Amino acid sequence: MADLIQPRTLKGFRDYPPELMLPREHLLEKARRVYRSYGFAPIDTPALEYSEILLGKGGEESDKQLYRFTDHGGRDVALRFDLTVPFARFAAEHIAKLGTPFKRYHMGLVWRGENTQRGRYREFMQCDFDTIGTTGNGADIEVVLVINDLLVALGLERFTIHVNNRLVLNGLLEDLGLAGKTKAVLIALDKLAKIGPEAVAAEMARAAVQTGQAERLLALAQTQGSNAEILDRLGREFGGNAKAKEGIRRLEELVAMAVAAGVSEERLHLDLAIARGLDYYTGTVYETFLTDLPTIGSICSGGRYDNLAALYTKQQLPGVGASLGLDRLLAALEELKLLETRSTPAPVLLAQFSADQLGAYHKMARTLRDQGIGVEVYPEAKKLGQQLQYAEKRGFRIALIAGPDEFAQGVWKIKVLASREEKTVPADQLTGILLKILELEKGTFPQLN
Amino acid sequence: MADLIQPRTLKGFRDYPPELMLPREHLLEKARRVYRSYGFAPIDTPALEYSEILLGKGGEESDKQLYRFTDHGGRDVALRFDLTVPFARFAAEHIAKLGTPFKRYHMGLVWRGENTQRGRYREFMQCDFDTIGTTGNGADIEVVLVINDLLVALGLERFTIHVNNRLVLNGLLEDLGLAGKTKAVLIALDKLAKIGPEAVAAEMARAAVQTGQAERLLALAQTQGSNAEILDRLGREFGGNAKAKEGIRRLEELVAMAVAAGVSEERLHLDLAIARGLDYYTGTVYETFLTDLPTIGSICSGGRYDNLAALYTKQQLPGVGASLGLDRLLAALEELKLLETRSTPAPVLLAQFSADQLGAYHKMARTLRDQGIGVEVYPEAKKLGQQLQYAEKRGFRIALIAGPDEFAQGVWKIKVLASREEKTVPADQLTGILLKILELEKGTFPQLN
Repeated sequence: MADLIQPRTLKGFRDYPPELMLPREHLLEKARRVYRSYGFAPIDTPALEYSEILLGKGGEESDKQLYRFTDHGGRDVALRFDLTVPFARFAAEHIAKLGTPFKRYHMGLVWRGENTQRGRYREFMQCDFDTIGTTGNGADIEVVLVINDLLVALGLERFTIHVNNRLVLNGLLEDLGLAGKTKAVLIALDKLAKIGPEAVAAEMARAAVQTGQAERLLALAQTQGSNAEILDRLGREFGGNAKAKEGIRRLEELVAMAVAAGVSEERLHLDLAIARGLDYYTGTVYETFLTDLPTIGSICSGGRYDNLAALYTKQQLPGVGASLGLDRLLAALEELKLLETRSTPAPVLLAQFSADQLGAYHKMARTLRDQGIGVEVYPEAKKLGQQLQYAEKRGFRIALIAGPDEFAQGVWKIKVLASREEKTVPADQLTGILLKILELEKGTFPQLN
Repeated sequence: MADLIQPRTLKGFRDYPPELMLPREHLLEKARRVYRSYGFAPIDTPALEYSEILLGKGGEESDKQLYRFTDHGGRDVALRFDLTVPFARFAAEHIAKLGTPFKRYHMGLVWRGENTQRGRYREFMQCDFDTIGTTGNGADIEVVLVINDLLVALGLERFTIHVNNRLVLNGLLEDLGLAGKTKAVLIALDKLAKIGPEAVAAEMARAAVQTGQAERLLALAQTQGSNAEILDRLGREFGGNAKAKEGIRRLEELVAMAVAAGVSEERLHLDLAIARGLDYYTGTVYETFLTDLPTIGSICSGGRYDNLAALYTKQQLPGVGASLGLDRLLAALEELKLLETRSTPAPVLLAQFSADQLGAYHKMARTLRDQGIGVEVYPEAKKLGQQLQYAEKRGFRIALIAGPDEFAQGVWKIKVLASREEKTVPADQLTGILLKILELEKGTFPQLN
């Protein structure tokens, strides 16, 4: 016999067994439903692209992390490292046919050969949504609504959406004569929550920002108060600069309209410290924090940009969007042991008591499935005890049992696994009774419908 | 300005714009629902594996087609070319913890650098389901039920599931003294439908199969008749061989139980020509053909195997499963122009008539979404004609319009885009009326719920 090959995954990669994959699919399905309900349409792009499409788009670090190689046809190719660059390429290629505004969501795997840390993998899933081809603030406001509805749909009620507008910061930088240092300033400012104001000021000093300038920037970023108070202060202090004025107007409208549309004002924070380090963003920027899990950072971030696909087309494509950090969220829920340990998507195990009744078992299982009840039929007529043990290990709720006696009487035995309760019911009432038992536990179990 | 980079995809790869992605997601969702309803649980494995895991598993051809390279850490890695080999590696690694029987489905992209033909791509999606850790015929029978329910769920009512058992063929080969030539014989036999009996006989002759032997094999493969007639003939002619006898017994039970469970016998064909060329299969084998699209070949195929993961573990893992050729099906539907050209997942476009009512528009949109109606709010207050043009191009069903007059009267204007009918309804009746209009077209539109 040949030597065995060691079954193992690559460093930084992981398998998704059912107990991880069930919640991942659940999150994806919820996100898909919310995106669609707003008219975002799904797209997909290939995992592999010409390297020239991907290189230099995410900075030096990102180029180094590219999984890049030469394919069979001698082409220089690489695995995508995010969904934004492929979307830019996609938009440049197809926008004439698609028309604008164009709203898309994209859920897909991306690959980065980065140093692995806890909860960070070299393969992970991104869930982006964007509206391109419009500068209308309606699209910016909608991002807040989508993030709100998305997190509520995911069962996360306690969160805050932090919003800022880069025009306000840019206006101030312009006033301070720092317009040429935007990038260094924003990278420093982005670290405020992590390293504190002194360290940020020191980093700015290294970028030749004067002490007085750094103080004004930090004072702005640290502005505290209600949304109305912040807007009021912004108007008074920065309303003179045209850029800042437009940023303030858009923020004001965004807060008013989002609240009018039903988003609780408690969840919506104007936060002038949010800069989103990337040079890329030019208007509204968003970050989202879970009240009970602040340490994992923002789980849904994004912003407005002036031009998505400048590298591939001369057509100006402004847009706004955000990305849900699904695998980060999942890893955090896993670490906090907030995931169910269930590993079956079906609530009912139908035991195989008599092999010669397999047709009748499968017939009943199909009847139940037609009513939306997931049912697994055990594949062998093993000892009942073994089948029930299997049911408990997998996390089934209910076992159904019928042998020659039950068939003779036209009844089925229902066993509720958690409580070990048993009852015998007429075959024609089985569906109704199961639906009632499962209804009681609705929401705690991945539903079929 | 720098030169533009040409936006293009690699040869053999394709983008999925909304009009292709909407049906793909629809098919995936239906498949997921059916798999889950039978208790198959989702898993995922990395796109990249150590090359040694993948090499030599699909034959020489498959090795040549591997996207294989050296990663940052000097590891010899490759993109998976199917989902079966990663599942074997996964099972070997985790089965002790998972326990048996283990039922999983896996929907994922695979990559093969093969010569591109129409409808074949170098990146495509596979949707596999398998039950491992059991030799019970219950699992084999279930595969028929799953294929049946899957295709019905996909809206494909006219199809036939062809079933054979390799034990019958193996028994005959044993009787004929051809057990050592199984592979060559099966590869030839698999081409029967394509190249006809003479060409198959010629190919067998080249593999040193005698004319009389080839004739008996071809006679068996070409057996015509009802399932009962075929079983009867098999019993008479091959019942003496122990292997064939067990194969016949399992086929007989499969037909009886599947029909008892509600599968129409018209859809279930015993077909002794189905060999599934791979050496891999050892028992039941399945192929599925669409009555109205026979040219695309089998869209759901699979079979029983004795040992899934022999290369990675000493634990014997028998199993049975099949794979839905989702992208092949999609490409065929596309070519036949059977896909809707709609490119929005939401049926309703809410026009932005007055920019200052954006809050009210978004509030109404959220109310409708709560009732399961997908609604897109147009992001800018452009001319109404342009917004309606956009709605028609994207494939929305209904436009909703409200300006100052409507708000003053507490009404909304509904415009049904196909018929150009318009009616004005009180705001508090809007949800009910929209649900009724959309109900009439249910099934023809991707539903939210």
